[in-house]
Amino acid sequence: MKGRFDTRAGEQRLDRALEFHAQVTFIGHIESPWTLADCPKNLRQARETGQCAVLHLEPAFRAGLEGVAAGDALVLLYWMSEAPRDLIRQTPRHRTDGTGTFNLRSPARPNPIGMGIVKVLEIDTNLGVIRIDAIDAIDGTPLIDIKPHMPRADCVPE
Amino acid sequence: MKGRFDTRAGEQRLDRALEFHAQVTFIGHIESPWTLADCPKNLRQARETGQCAVLHLEPAFRAGLEGVAAGDALVLLYWMSEAPRDLIRQTPRHRTDGTGTFNLRSPARPNPIGMGIVKVLEIDTNLGVIRIDAIDAIDGTPLIDIKPHMPRADCVPE
Repeated sequence: MKGRFDTRAGEQRLDRALEFHAQVTFIGHIESPWTLADCPKNLRQARETGQCAVLHLEPAFRAGLEGVAAGDALVLLYWMSEAPRDLIRQTPRHRTDGTGTFNLRSPARPNPIGMGIVKVLEIDTNLGVIRIDAIDAIDGTPLIDIKPHMPRADCVPE
Repeated sequence: MKGRFDTRAGEQRLDRALEFHAQVTFIGHIESPWTLADCPKNLRQARETGQCAVLHLEPAFRAGLEGVAAGDALVLLYWMSEAPRDLIRQTPRHRTDGTGTFNLRSPARPNPIGMGIVKVLEIDTNLGVIRIDAIDAIDGTPLIDIKPHMPRADCVPE
């Protein structure tokens, strides 16, 4: 947990090892233009680059794509395996003071799940391949869920 | 996997057991007015009931709430332990034909992760208690992540 993610001023780590309660299956992965070094910090930044990304589903899960079509907005959940999971207060580069992990979108969190709402540009259900407009995830990131985005249900009132 | 979730016409189950690749820790739980029998089908329905809910964080994770305040919009991720994980095509009650699991918000999915964008009404960081406007999750549902909602990054263009 040291090295790339050294503890900075204002940061705090959990004082004991995480306990685990459930298990996750990887349904596929994300092919993106990004490495850990140049990955955009959020989806808006990723969109501004104009660089697309591609989702690849494992054969067992491809039937689950039936009904998904070009033009749809999807919620992607992905697993950011590279991030430390024991940082509970953090000082990101855009801040001078520390703040709570749940007040940040940092990949370093107890469950390193990233979320992005993306647009389908093209889909081949049989091959399990979906071209999307953008994603702020590094190449090879495991995918754990795809959901239809539902603005009426997903947005907070006003 | 039978009983409450019998396979209906147009549905398809995975043909082998799920493989697991990563582990999840439960950071707390959701206190809600809902049982499995009367849980609203989505967040909009839950809001329409006017019934609030409360998040309870485990002591180890409470420092992660620093900076979260009343009025904030949060993304919640929670673990729907009650749902079967092997249904890859489904025929929900509002449809007559089956469709892919990733084209639905059903709790039955390979990783039973629910997502809701909610509003903080009141928060006590020290006690790890957050009162929120609404949630479509049954009482006792384990919580796995809390993120600040960022409309500029989270919404698809146009």
